[in-house]
Amino acid sequence: MYRTNTCGELRISDVGKTVTLAGWVQRIRKMGGMSFIDLRDRYGITQLVVDDASSDAVKEALGKLGREAVIQAVGKVAERQSKNAKIDTGDIEIILSEINILNLSATPPFTIEDNSDGGEELRAKYRYLDLRRGPLKNALMLRHKLAHEVRNYLDAQGFMEIETPYLIKSTPEGARDFVVPSRMNPGEFYALPQSPQTFKQLLMVAGYDRYFQIVRCFRDEDLRADRQPEFTQIDCEMSFVEQEDVLNTFEGMMRTLFKNVVGVEIANPIPRISWYDAMDRYGSDKPDIRFGMEIHEISPLVQGHGFSVFDSVEYVGAIAVPGAAEYTRKQTDELTEWVKRPQVGAKGLVYIKLNPDGSIKSSVDKFYTPEQLQAVADAMGAKTGDLILVLCGEKRKTQTMLGVLRIEMGNRLGLRKPNEFAPLWVVDFPLLEWSEEDGRFYAMHHPFTAPKPEHMELFYSDRKEDLEKVCANAYDFVLNGTELGGGSIRIHQADVQQRMFQVLGISKEDADYKFGFIINAFKFGAPPHGGLAFGFDRVCALFGGQETIRDFIAFPKNNMGRDVMIDSPSRIDQVQMDELFLSSTAPEPKE
Amino acid sequence: MYRTNTCGELRISDVGKTVTLAGWVQRIRKMGGMSFIDLRDRYGITQLVVDDASSDAVKEALGKLGREAVIQAVGKVAERQSKNAKIDTGDIEIILSEINILNLSATPPFTIEDNSDGGEELRAKYRYLDLRRGPLKNALMLRHKLAHEVRNYLDAQGFMEIETPYLIKSTPEGARDFVVPSRMNPGEFYALPQSPQTFKQLLMVAGYDRYFQIVRCFRDEDLRADRQPEFTQIDCEMSFVEQEDVLNTFEGMMRTLFKNVVGVEIANPIPRISWYDAMDRYGSDKPDIRFGMEIHEISPLVQGHGFSVFDSVEYVGAIAVPGAAEYTRKQTDELTEWVKRPQVGAKGLVYIKLNPDGSIKSSVDKFYTPEQLQAVADAMGAKTGDLILVLCGEKRKTQTMLGVLRIEMGNRLGLRKPNEFAPLWVVDFPLLEWSEEDGRFYAMHHPFTAPKPEHMELFYSDRKEDLEKVCANAYDFVLNGTELGGGSIRIHQADVQQRMFQVLGISKEDADYKFGFIINAFKFGAPPHGGLAFGFDRVCALFGGQETIRDFIAFPKNNMGRDVMIDSPSRIDQVQMDELFLSSTAPEPKE
Repeated sequence: MYRTNTCGELRISDVGKTVTLAGWVQRIRKMGGMSFIDLRDRYGITQLVVDDASSDAVKEALGKLGREAVIQAVGKVAERQSKNAKIDTGDIEIILSEINILNLSATPPFTIEDNSDGGEELRAKYRYLDLRRGPLKNALMLRHKLAHEVRNYLDAQGFMEIETPYLIKSTPEGARDFVVPSRMNPGEFYALPQSPQTFKQLLMVAGYDRYFQIVRCFRDEDLRADRQPEFTQIDCEMSFVEQEDVLNTFEGMMRTLFKNVVGVEIANPIPRISWYDAMDRYGSDKPDIRFGMEIHEISPLVQGHGFSVFDSVEYVGAIAVPGAAEYTRKQTDELTEWVKRPQVGAKGLVYIKLNPDGSIKSSVDKFYTPEQLQAVADAMGAKTGDLILVLCGEKRKTQTMLGVLRIEMGNRLGLRKPNEFAPLWVVDFPLLEWSEEDGRFYAMHHPFTAPKPEHMELFYSDRKEDLEKVCANAYDFVLNGTELGGGSIRIHQADVQQRMFQVLGISKEDADYKFGFIINAFKFGAPPHGGLAFGFDRVCALFGGQETIRDFIAFPKNNMGRDVMIDSPSRIDQVQMDELFLSSTAPEPKE
Repeated sequence: MYRTNTCGELRISDVGKTVTLAGWVQRIRKMGGMSFIDLRDRYGITQLVVDDASSDAVKEALGKLGREAVIQAVGKVAERQSKNAKIDTGDIEIILSEINILNLSATPPFTIEDNSDGGEELRAKYRYLDLRRGPLKNALMLRHKLAHEVRNYLDAQGFMEIETPYLIKSTPEGARDFVVPSRMNPGEFYALPQSPQTFKQLLMVAGYDRYFQIVRCFRDEDLRADRQPEFTQIDCEMSFVEQEDVLNTFEGMMRTLFKNVVGVEIANPIPRISWYDAMDRYGSDKPDIRFGMEIHEISPLVQGHGFSVFDSVEYVGAIAVPGAAEYTRKQTDELTEWVKRPQVGAKGLVYIKLNPDGSIKSSVDKFYTPEQLQAVADAMGAKTGDLILVLCGEKRKTQTMLGVLRIEMGNRLGLRKPNEFAPLWVVDFPLLEWSEEDGRFYAMHHPFTAPKPEHMELFYSDRKEDLEKVCANAYDFVLNGTELGGGSIRIHQADVQQRMFQVLGISKEDADYKFGFIINAFKFGAPPHGGLAFGFDRVCALFGGQETIRDFIAFPKNNMGRDVMIDSPSRIDQVQMDELFLSSTAPEPKE
C-alpha cells in the first residue's frame, strides 16, 4: 500500500503521528520560506508543508512538482497555525520528510476546480480529468449510494436481482433498436434491449414473483437534449399483486432513498392524481406540485358573450399568477409573444388583471363587464393582485399550453425550489392513444399494459370512441415535474393480449413473429402481475438537485451519440465487415 | 395482494388461521373422497385439501384444474395426519373453502420436477417453464445472493460501483468484438465491451481509487462448450496499491462469500504458487490442489540408459497414481490409448508398477534395473501400490499432458470432491507469450499488465530470450482446477506502455488509433494501480457445486449463440438496414 491514510482522514487527534499519503497536487503556494501543497484524493484534501528545515531531497522534489502530479508524501501530522474550517482536515497539516514522485502530469487543458474554466467539449474529450472535479465526484458517489440503497431495500423486500440478456431480438414497435450483426448466423441480427420488459414478464411466468434489476437499456433515437442512447433503469416486476401493492412497495423504496441518501422526509402517503385530473388541473401528465397556480376551465363563464375567439373553441382555460397584476403592458406583450413561439404554439393570450386597488382590467374589456370578469376570478379563487392568463382552443392542446405557461411562470416567480421534493403518483392513464397521422391506436404505455377490469367491455368494442375511454391500471412516479418512473398491471391472459395486438393493428403474423414467445408463454399459467421501472440516471440527477443527467453518468455521449473521449463510433476493418457479411452503403468519409 | 402468505411460510403454529395462498398446481392426488393439491410458488409447496365437506364451487373448480394452473386458494390451516418431514410446510395442510382460478395452463411440454423428462433443446425453447424447476430456481437465488454479498463487501471496503458504457470502440486486439452500427454516424460502428478494462483504468486516472462493477461483457468467439457470447464479470480496480493489497482485498471477499453464502471456511491464508511452479508441479496454470499426485521431472534418473525415446527428449516427467499398481494390462493399454487421443496428444505412455508384494514391473524393464526404477519411485515419493505414469517430450507440452492425465486420474479415483473448496492464487506469470505461428509476442494477460520492476531491464532488451524471462505482477484466482478470476498491477507510465505496444508489434499509429485516449490519459498524472476481474457466471456455478454455467444464467444462449426461446438473432427489416447504411452479403436463407 502506498499510503497509511487518505487525504480526507486526518484530524487534530492524529497530531504527532507519522503518516504516508498519496494523491494529486491540487496547488502549491509559497509563503516566505514555506511551501504548502494541497494534496487531493477521492476523500479530501490535506495540506503538506515544506519549510527551511526540510531535507534537500524534499526541496528538490518540490521543485519538480506541478499541478496534478501524483506523489507519495511522508511526514508528521501537526496542528495548523491558521485553521481552515471549510475542510474536514482543516485543523492539521503534514510536515514533510519525504516526497516520492509517482508520476508527473502534463499541464491539464482546463483547471481541475469545482468551477472549471474548460468548455463543455474540451471537458468531454478529457472526461477522465473532468471526473477529478468535486461536483462530478459527488455525483458519482451519490449514484453509487443510491444504487446500493435500492438494492438493499429490494433485497430486504424479497426481490431477486436477475440478469436478463443484452443480445435479444429486434421488435421494431416503438423506438428504434440498436442492432448487432451475428457472425455465426449470417444475415441475422441481435438487438440491444430498449428495456427488459418481455423478459421480466417471462420471469413472472416462471414464478420469480419479485424481480428487479438495475440494468442498461438502449434506444436509437434522435437525441434531444439530456437523452442518452444508453441509459440505466431500476426495473421491477411483481406477481400476485394489484396496483395498490406495487405503489406501496415503491413508495416505500422512494421514501427510504430520500431518508437514507439525502435525509429528507417526503409526504406520507405520496399524493395521487388521475391522468385526467392532472391534465385538467396542471396541463401535464407530470405535474410539478411544489406550487399551485392550477388551471381552471372558464368556458361556461366566458362563452356566449359575443367574443368570437372564445365562442368558436372547445375550451377556454386560465391560470392565476399570484402577485403579477402589476405587470406592465410590455411584460404582458412579452408573455403573449412567449406563448406564440412554436415551442408553445398558442395563437394569442388574454389577460385579466386584478389590480391592487380592486379594479379589474383585461385585454377583452370590450366584451365583458367587470362583474363578468370578477365572476371568472371568483370561480378560479384568484385574489387581488393576481394576473389571470387565458388560453383557448382544443381542450387537451390548450391545457398542455397552459401547463407549459404555468411551469414558466413558476420558474419566473421562483416557486420551483430545488431543495423541495414533491413526489406524486399519476394514475388511471388512458390505455390507448389515437394517432391522427397514422390512423391507428398506439399503446400509451406499452402493448402489455392491462385495461382496467371494469373497462373490459369497452376494450372489446369496435368503436373508436369506446376504445378511447378505456383506462389502464398504469401509474407514473413524478417528482417536481419530471417523470422518474412508470409502470402498470400487465395483461396475463393470452386472449386479452391478442385483443390488444388487434387493437394496435399488429397482425397475428407480426405479433407471432415479434412476440410469439410471450404469447405462447402466457398459455402455460401466467400469474397476475405488474411492475414498473425508474429512470435511474434521472433519479440520480434529481436527488442531486440537478436538471441534467450528464454529470451523473461517468462516460456519457454527446448529442450525436458520440463518445468524444474514445472517439467512438468509428470505422471498422474490412475483415470485420466481411466476417459479418456486411457491406456499407454509407458515403465515404471526407478526410 | 392476491395472498396472505406464501407457499413456503405456514407452520404448525399457524393452525387455525384462515389464509389465502396463490401459486401453481404442482400435482393433484385423489385418495378416496379426498383430493390433495400441491400448490407451488417460489418459496415452497403447501398441501391443499378438498374433501366431501367442501362446497360445490370448490369441487367444481377442482375439476377444472390441471398441472401448472394458477390459482388463488382460501382455507383454514390444519395439522396434517401424515406429516412430511422433507418440506418446511410438511406439518400442515389447508382445508379449502374457496378456489379462484387465475389462469389455466396448456399441458407443459415436459414435467416441471427437479428431474425433468425434457431434453435440453426442448427445455431451452421453453426456458420460462424450465426456470420453474427447483434446481434452476436455487441457482438463480444463489446468484442473487452472491451478487448482493459481493456488493456489500466491496461497499464496506470503500469501493464505488461505477457504470461504464456498453457502446464503446472496436479494438481488434484479442478476441473478436460484437459491433453495433451507428445510424447517426453513417458507416461507423460502436463495439460492445469485452471488458471495461480501459474505462476502469481511466477511472483510476480520474482518482476513483476503489472501483468495482458487476458488468456484462461480450465476446464474439466460436463458442466452445460452456462459453457464452455475453457473460458477467465482477470487475475491480484499485489505486495506490501493490499486488499484496489486491490479493488481500479479494481474498477477503472470497472468504466472506464462502462463509456467508455457503457456510464454508476456506484456507487462511489462501495458498500461493508461482506460474512456473504450477506448471512444473501440476502441468497447469490452474491446478486443482484438492489432491496431490504431483508431477516430477525424472529426466536425470532415466536418461543415459540407452532408452532412445527418453534420451532424445528435453523432458521426462511422471505422476504416481496411488493404489493403481494393480491395474491390468488392459487398463494400462486403455490409459495409453487415452493419452494418445488428439485431445491429449502424447506419443505413448510408460508405466512403472510398485506392486504390493514389493516387486517392480514396468513397460521399460528392458532398459532399467529394478534398482533404477526404485530410485525413480523414491525420488517421487511414490509408495508401494502406486502406479507411476511417465510421459516425455518438450518440457511445457509434456507437463501440460501430465496435468491433463493427473486431472483424469483424479476424476477416476474420486479425488475431486465436489463439496471441498481449495482456492489458490497463481502468481508471477510470464509477461509475454511467443507465438511461433505469428512470429510475435502476445500479452499473456493483456497489454496493460506491468512488468515486474526488477525485470525492467530485460523488458527493454531486444533479445527474444530476455523478453521471455520478463515476469508480470499478475495473478489468477483458481478454485478446484478452474480459473475464477485474474488480474494484474497495470502499467501507469506512458513510456512503459509505449514500450509494451512496441514489444507486441503494435505500431505507434495503431496504438494511437486504438488506445490513444488511454496513452494520452496517462500523461496527466496516472497513479500506480491494479485490479482484477472474476467470471461471475463461473463463480456462481462453482459455488453451486456445478461445472456448467448455463443453469446459473436466466436466459443463456446455445452453442450457436442463439436464444432458441425468443428465436434470436433474426433478420431485420430492409428499412432498418437502409437506415444503418448497410447491405447484407449473406446468402439468402433457405425457406
